[in-house]
Amino acid sequence: MTSDKYEIISELAKRRGFFWPSYEIYGGLSGFVTLGPLGSLLKRRIEDKFRSIFVNPLGILEIESSVIMPARVFEASGHVDHFKEPMVKCGDCGRRFRGDHLLQENVGLSDTETEKLNLQDLFDLINENKIGCPNCGGEFNESKNFLTMFTTTIGPYSESIGYGRPEAAQGIFVEFKRLYEYAREKLPFGAVQIGHALRNEISPRQGPIRLREFTIIDLEFFLDPKKDQCPILNTVEREPLRLIPAERKRGGDQESIEITVRTALDKGYIKAEWLAFFIALSKRFLVELGISNDKQRFIEKLEWERAHYSTQGYDQEVWLDRWGWVELSGHNYRADYDLKCHMESSGVDMRVFAADEERIIIDDLIVKPVMSKIGPLFKENASEIVNQLSKVDPRDLVQSFKDNGSYKLESFEILPEYVEIVSVPVEKTGRRFIPHVIEPSFGSDRLVYATLEHSLKMKEGRTVLSLPRDISPIQLSVFPLVSKDGLPEKAEKIRQILVGEDFIVEYDESGSIGRRYARANEIGIPLNITVDYETLENETVTLRDRDSWKQIRIEIKNLPALLEDYFKYKTDFEDLRDKD
Amino acid sequence: MTSDKYEIISELAKRRGFFWPSYEIYGGLSGFVTLGPLGSLLKRRIEDKFRSIFVNPLGILEIESSVIMPARVFEASGHVDHFKEPMVKCGDCGRRFRGDHLLQENVGLSDTETEKLNLQDLFDLINENKIGCPNCGGEFNESKNFLTMFTTTIGPYSESIGYGRPEAAQGIFVEFKRLYEYAREKLPFGAVQIGHALRNEISPRQGPIRLREFTIIDLEFFLDPKKDQCPILNTVEREPLRLIPAERKRGGDQESIEITVRTALDKGYIKAEWLAFFIALSKRFLVELGISNDKQRFIEKLEWERAHYSTQGYDQEVWLDRWGWVELSGHNYRADYDLKCHMESSGVDMRVFAADEERIIIDDLIVKPVMSKIGPLFKENASEIVNQLSKVDPRDLVQSFKDNGSYKLESFEILPEYVEIVSVPVEKTGRRFIPHVIEPSFGSDRLVYATLEHSLKMKEGRTVLSLPRDISPIQLSVFPLVSKDGLPEKAEKIRQILVGEDFIVEYDESGSIGRRYARANEIGIPLNITVDYETLENETVTLRDRDSWKQIRIEIKNLPALLEDYFKYKTDFEDLRDKD
Repeated sequence: MTSDKYEIISELAKRRGFFWPSYEIYGGLSGFVTLGPLGSLLKRRIEDKFRSIFVNPLGILEIESSVIMPARVFEASGHVDHFKEPMVKCGDCGRRFRGDHLLQENVGLSDTETEKLNLQDLFDLINENKIGCPNCGGEFNESKNFLTMFTTTIGPYSESIGYGRPEAAQGIFVEFKRLYEYAREKLPFGAVQIGHALRNEISPRQGPIRLREFTIIDLEFFLDPKKDQCPILNTVEREPLRLIPAERKRGGDQESIEITVRTALDKGYIKAEWLAFFIALSKRFLVELGISNDKQRFIEKLEWERAHYSTQGYDQEVWLDRWGWVELSGHNYRADYDLKCHMESSGVDMRVFAADEERIIIDDLIVKPVMSKIGPLFKENASEIVNQLSKVDPRDLVQSFKDNGSYKLESFEILPEYVEIVSVPVEKTGRRFIPHVIEPSFGSDRLVYATLEHSLKMKEGRTVLSLPRDISPIQLSVFPLVSKDGLPEKAEKIRQILVGEDFIVEYDESGSIGRRYARANEIGIPLNITVDYETLENETVTLRDRDSWKQIRIEIKNLPALLEDYFKYKTDFEDLRDKD
Repeated sequence: MTSDKYEIISELAKRRGFFWPSYEIYGGLSGFVTLGPLGSLLKRRIEDKFRSIFVNPLGILEIESSVIMPARVFEASGHVDHFKEPMVKCGDCGRRFRGDHLLQENVGLSDTETEKLNLQDLFDLINENKIGCPNCGGEFNESKNFLTMFTTTIGPYSESIGYGRPEAAQGIFVEFKRLYEYAREKLPFGAVQIGHALRNEISPRQGPIRLREFTIIDLEFFLDPKKDQCPILNTVEREPLRLIPAERKRGGDQESIEITVRTALDKGYIKAEWLAFFIALSKRFLVELGISNDKQRFIEKLEWERAHYSTQGYDQEVWLDRWGWVELSGHNYRADYDLKCHMESSGVDMRVFAADEERIIIDDLIVKPVMSKIGPLFKENASEIVNQLSKVDPRDLVQSFKDNGSYKLESFEILPEYVEIVSVPVEKTGRRFIPHVIEPSFGSDRLVYATLEHSLKMKEGRTVLSLPRDISPIQLSVFPLVSKDGLPEKAEKIRQILVGEDFIVEYDESGSIGRRYARANEIGIPLNITVDYETLENETVTLRDRDSWKQIRIEIKNLPALLEDYFKYKTDFEDLRDKD
């Protein structure tokens, strides 16, 4: 048996329905993975765990927007210019490859080193090192930066370009105004989107780690840069983190230091309290998925490694058996980059107003009645109209003129030519500014894979997925000891009771009971319920623990309440017993 | 105030964060809608309700595959040929329109009538009726069938075409073999996929009803056509359905008849028990979303209205104020259409084997040792090798030759030329066949919209969304009566307790208590918790019912258990009281 955990998990994942390469019957399509019945459930449980840690307690707003987005969004965000990878083409067979990957594999350059190279340097280095085409050995004669967004057209006009979104963040930024309104125009607030994203990788590898289509979790937290303290920092400040700040990395040191969130802030390793807060939550999140602190680290991005929008960035990395440290989440201080881009590109003001000590001049609208029109037209009512007009919000007037061509003032119709709407400078106390953004971002598929790998245990030669009980895709299995004498019918009834209580339950009557236990262990079912002859006599079943293999007997009528407590971590297996 | 429910809901949806047109800051993009914080939660609750009715009780396998799919899948499925809509182009301004929609709007033809027309007939009718371009009044001078799938390329090679999936069903069919294996090679079983789908509509309208990107719920139920009885039909057979079978429709009668599932089957209106079973579940599903039976009907598709893969089809329609009867789900008997297409196109055998009474001849592989090679090479071991080879599964041999170039037989290496693998006819008891498929298919966005519209009530001049309590996006709101004297702090503590118990809770302290109740009613929060001065004295709060506006006092410590029962429909508001 192989000892490479990636191979073990991939084989298990395929055989037991966690995930497998998509489109196998058509010879496969690299970069696409299908989540099977167990993988899809596991992913949803991981996402729900994310919600229970990040979204619900903080009142983060979850939205859902489209995967296909109009070109203007990604022109504004800088993706059309920056979301590219260096590609080289073989002069003989015409196959295309990622230039930086070739240098990493053949010359041993690190990610950090290839990030620094421009396209020409990279191409020169490939030729200097005489790296041949992996397919035919030929020489590379062409290099270009390849846009790694999927391109399409929207509607029947070919000039209407659309892109498959490479992340879900822009879908939040373009909706900022509506979300800010929903948040009652108060900062800070966060919005999150969990959904498919697309990256048209040149030559994807590494199974579920690098995909062309995957699920991303993008959380955008908007704040006032002048009031950026995190009032709930005390809930995480003693949390220890394994950190590699940029200054250590620059000195060539790749060892992490273990310090608390508080210290990381005090020493200036993390530049914003909310950034530190989310980093701490992310660590806890992965611990709750079963990935212990010593298998995680946070590594700061050096300047040339950071994305174009980021002013400080940390990657949360997890140790994976085959690839070493792999990024599972990114934490970026995006500042006002995105909102500013969309504000400039759309012409829509994305600034917010904070009523505080500074005095500023802002432009405000006022309505001036045109008396030469109103007087002759409305005669004795003219002064009342002028009086009423002074109470109308000028914005309502502008909007109504736009929508209806006129404005209804009680029984009078006000046409645009009756008024002059002018912009005047007004002094106010407060500031107008573009909110800053802190972004934690996860990939669901990597979380699924890392959770599986870190749950892998061997016990007496058997594979056991020791998934946390609230993460295991299937919670319970119900087995009749034998497939006769009414035991299957009784077991099916118990399954129905539990399904009615919203548990996810599998029924299995095939093979020996030992084989069924082994199969349940292999897919991580925390508890197995067995129906035997005694069940028919006294309405009790046995409950078997996945990890200790211990068994206890429980009355069927007590099952739902006991199991509910167990899956909510209110009780442990050892303490499960009938309470009569 | 408008009385058009679509306008009321759209305005409310925009203002309160259910949904709104996407990309507003860039002038909008028709056919794309963003689900805001409340819409996204509502959609997830509706999908979870679907799971609790269809997926969990039946053990349906939920999977997740990609939105971008390789061209071969949709060439095989018939989409590349059939997934087209008639488009006409204005000779003057160049704008393009759906030809059938123009005829429906201008000549009053029905959907059923335009479905029968071919492209030329349609174009002729437009010209005969002198229908001008809605944009400029010009004449249409071009017509073509427009492929309404989004097209892209996958990877760096332009010949590698990919399509945005117009439905999620094909992602299940191409994985049939793996899913059948997961289902332990037993029929019937079902698989479902809930995910984004894309249709590049020519000119989408109707807000959330006809979108270019939307969420589809495709359930594919695989069965043996010779054993197609539904053993749990008794659980639904007395359910009344409002049905318009094809024979009535063909006679020009559009009135539905109300009959039970049993009668619909007995009279031959529904041709398969499982099709009837899913139709009955779909009715119950919508009733649980708050759409009563008299606002639903099932209408059979006539031959020319059915999709290319369907042999019998019913649409579940719901009455919507603006548009009348609108399809919310489709129920199609797809027979063996899809698996057969993919089998023919991929060359992979999708047939299954049923061990039953019929005797059939199937081709089996046998291994013939080539003694002229084995003898001289293995000498004294030759006969042992021949003996061992007779026990090897010929498929393993073929696979190993393919993967490794040889087969390891204990310590011997068997090369392909040592054996001859031949196919021989063998008589077996049983059948090989392609499973048949019954498909219920829903659109999540339409479900969201219809659920909202059907929950809309007015009470004393106020808007109340009377959403079923387990469907309401936000379950609870916590209000301090006033924003001082420690009430906000107490209210926030209660919020935290409830969030810790996995309730979705909103905290609100802005505006008068009456205004906060009104706002909570408007977004359908079933229960409002108010913290007042009495709370500080005796640890009780008031609980207010959204629909009756009645209030009761409850001890804080009893809240979690009482609310859990309430949201699981184990108790009603009238019966909520402290149990001490």
